[in-house]
Amino acid sequence: MARNTHVPADTAAPPITAILAKFVANHPSRGWSDAVEREAHRTFYNWLGCAIGAARHEAAEAAVAAVQMLEPAPQATVLGRAEKVDMASAALVNGITSHTFDFDDTHLKTIIHPAGPVASAVLALAERNGASGRDVIDALVLGIDVACRIGNVMYPDHYDRGWHITGSTGMLGAAAGCARLLRLDEEQTAMALGIAASQPVGLREQFGTMTKPFHPGAAARAGLMSALLASRGFTASSRALEAPRGLVQVASDKRAWHEATDELGERFEISFNTYKPFACGIVIHPSIDACVRLRAQGVTPQQVERIELRVHSLVLELTGKKEPKDGLQGKFSVYHGCAAGLIYGRAGEEEFSDAVVNDAQVVALRNKVQASVDDGIDEAAAQVTAVLQGGRRVEVRVDHAIGSLQNPLSDAQLEAKFGSLVEPVLGQARSDEITKTCRTLASLADLRLLTALCSA
Amino acid sequence: MARNTHVPADTAAPPITAILAKFVANHPSRGWSDAVEREAHRTFYNWLGCAIGAARHEAAEAAVAAVQMLEPAPQATVLGRAEKVDMASAALVNGITSHTFDFDDTHLKTIIHPAGPVASAVLALAERNGASGRDVIDALVLGIDVACRIGNVMYPDHYDRGWHITGSTGMLGAAAGCARLLRLDEEQTAMALGIAASQPVGLREQFGTMTKPFHPGAAARAGLMSALLASRGFTASSRALEAPRGLVQVASDKRAWHEATDELGERFEISFNTYKPFACGIVIHPSIDACVRLRAQGVTPQQVERIELRVHSLVLELTGKKEPKDGLQGKFSVYHGCAAGLIYGRAGEEEFSDAVVNDAQVVALRNKVQASVDDGIDEAAAQVTAVLQGGRRVEVRVDHAIGSLQNPLSDAQLEAKFGSLVEPVLGQARSDEITKTCRTLASLADLRLLTALCSA
Repeated sequence: MARNTHVPADTAAPPITAILAKFVANHPSRGWSDAVEREAHRTFYNWLGCAIGAARHEAAEAAVAAVQMLEPAPQATVLGRAEKVDMASAALVNGITSHTFDFDDTHLKTIIHPAGPVASAVLALAERNGASGRDVIDALVLGIDVACRIGNVMYPDHYDRGWHITGSTGMLGAAAGCARLLRLDEEQTAMALGIAASQPVGLREQFGTMTKPFHPGAAARAGLMSALLASRGFTASSRALEAPRGLVQVASDKRAWHEATDELGERFEISFNTYKPFACGIVIHPSIDACVRLRAQGVTPQQVERIELRVHSLVLELTGKKEPKDGLQGKFSVYHGCAAGLIYGRAGEEEFSDAVVNDAQVVALRNKVQASVDDGIDEAAAQVTAVLQGGRRVEVRVDHAIGSLQNPLSDAQLEAKFGSLVEPVLGQARSDEITKTCRTLASLADLRLLTALCSA
Repeated sequence: MARNTHVPADTAAPPITAILAKFVANHPSRGWSDAVEREAHRTFYNWLGCAIGAARHEAAEAAVAAVQMLEPAPQATVLGRAEKVDMASAALVNGITSHTFDFDDTHLKTIIHPAGPVASAVLALAERNGASGRDVIDALVLGIDVACRIGNVMYPDHYDRGWHITGSTGMLGAAAGCARLLRLDEEQTAMALGIAASQPVGLREQFGTMTKPFHPGAAARAGLMSALLASRGFTASSRALEAPRGLVQVASDKRAWHEATDELGERFEISFNTYKPFACGIVIHPSIDACVRLRAQGVTPQQVERIELRVHSLVLELTGKKEPKDGLQGKFSVYHGCAAGLIYGRAGEEEFSDAVVNDAQVVALRNKVQASVDDGIDEAAAQVTAVLQGGRRVEVRVDHAIGSLQNPLSDAQLEAKFGSLVEPVLGQARSDEITKTCRTLASLADLRLLTALCSA
């Protein structure tokens, strides 16, 4: 019945829905290396800190107020807050808060933020069911694998055409994780993936509004509900991902099917997950890191006559705002990022507050940053020179910024980040207790022991 | 940051999100003709019958069982059943049941089934809030106008590439209707449309599974939640529909912006809504109608030697199943449709039951139907000749089948259809009472007077 076509329909796509469903349902518990297991713990922990940290943001207030209109049953914790709500609403709100600061994890191959949809859904279901830490880690690894593998199939075309890929693959990861947690068999898991496939969430047009973090939240809720429906016998196409009118072909011209199944069960996409040291888009990170390193070498704001910054053109295209007026605009200003890095030695959520962005010392230093484009420098690199009074030049070249795959945050750095997010919300004692619990999450008998600590 | 493009981004699109939001927020109550007002009543009534009729279908059972896992508050009625659930879940389940029999309304210009997402969301919210019939009709007319106008902007390209357009525009109609019911101002209404724009639901690959009717249900829930969020201050892009990375440009190469705004407030798309007399895809309707007319002319199955059917190629492409094995397959068999029409004089949900599809008399007559393609005959027409024993030929040509815009169901026929759907679920007395209430819906003081009748 097609009256016109876009790219030709691929009628010979491999049965990736069934293959992934079989994998999710049957892969052995902890069937992966110690490195993967460690990364799962780091992914969960980083996600948890981001969600708790944004618990009092106005986006959280609005979302909780809307959800309360449903008079939800107290099944699951809104992280960092006193409310409990039904598990689908908890998945929604926790998914929103985890992405509100743009501080969550990033699968760099696809720029998916996978924990937002997957962990938010899995934790809400786990709390309601009293699942174990082992089951949650298993669900997280497998769910993230599904979301990121489908991301690999479609990226970059899918993202380039305007989909916010975190929400438009995340519902699959959430469905997979919840299906695993519910111990659905491979047929039911295929149905869960199929139901979820009809619910991609997210347009890039929403960037800069609350609907950006809404995307992982809505994807979490959609995936969780898909798994619940499948568990009760609801049906979907068993080829919902790969059929000519299935998700991948409808939403992407790139269809690298092999990405869904290559080394399945051997290579885990969570291995490629990274955690931000700075609360802003990754493209500014090398410049901030360079300024943090200048500070560590003894350079002080008072000495600085100017800062010469050489970066790839993309950096200024995305974050070239010279005179940011508030915290949000600060996140799109490499100039502000450099100033914060040199003055404070960090750029967490606090350094992107309205107050800091308008602080006189910060503004003064920001105005001394001179950026120039050099496309010989990689997008992920930066060359920064501090020209000091008297003419001395101190130069730092960053090829792999802190937080990149090549130079990941250490566990201690992750814990410091967590504390900076959680302590203002729940206090230091509770923050430390959560950290201790998360270190051995896989051995936790009942997730409710953790969620109780995360409730305000 | 785009690394490749599909069709060029249209950066000069008119601000249709804002224009439609202003319209929805400010258009006067009952600001339309008597004909539009009557069609709104017919649309609501037809939708209600379909939803109640499918209340005990296995898709409804599965959906209600899943929703019960949320321990929902009893805010709104699951139509035709005893359960009450939270209003978002009621929107979901009633949207599912209203489309389960493929018997709901059709906006023929876009093949959107608009009441599924819009009425399901609006009624759930109206019941929770005790809204009046007047407010519900206003919300329904305006919500359907938004969904169908965005459909007109994108159809057919959007549908051809694989989107089930009912669910991928329906969330906008549901958001608009609920925003109206909540009396949101135009800025908040724009936010509601914006949040909804990130949540298109539905792939055509799901046709033939429960996830097809899930699409209008999920769209209803998404639209309702979008309006609730906007009412609590949640933000979205105010250009979420028209921006280069907004819904229309992401999901369609056809972007007939003028369709969103031409004659806004003068022409109402609900005027072009139609109601199915037969519980199957519209493409078979002319053939069934022709056989019903043969029966009315005295032709009996016993007399028939063969039935010669001439139709457009599309009819056999979509519904050419010669030997259907069950009710669902029967819906894709023009042969079965013809047999049912001649034997029973109708083709409601009962005539597509497994028992009827396998009835010996039906099978025998079905085998006497000979179909041939004639592309000189319109898709919406059919030419049927009954060749009787002895050689007499009785010919019927249907150019506008019953239920088409040119030959709409009368109110009496709609009431008969409603009764056939509702009486088996709620009994004749209750069915009649609901019919009476729906005749003057706009004057109902509180929708809960209606929903109480629709509860089992």
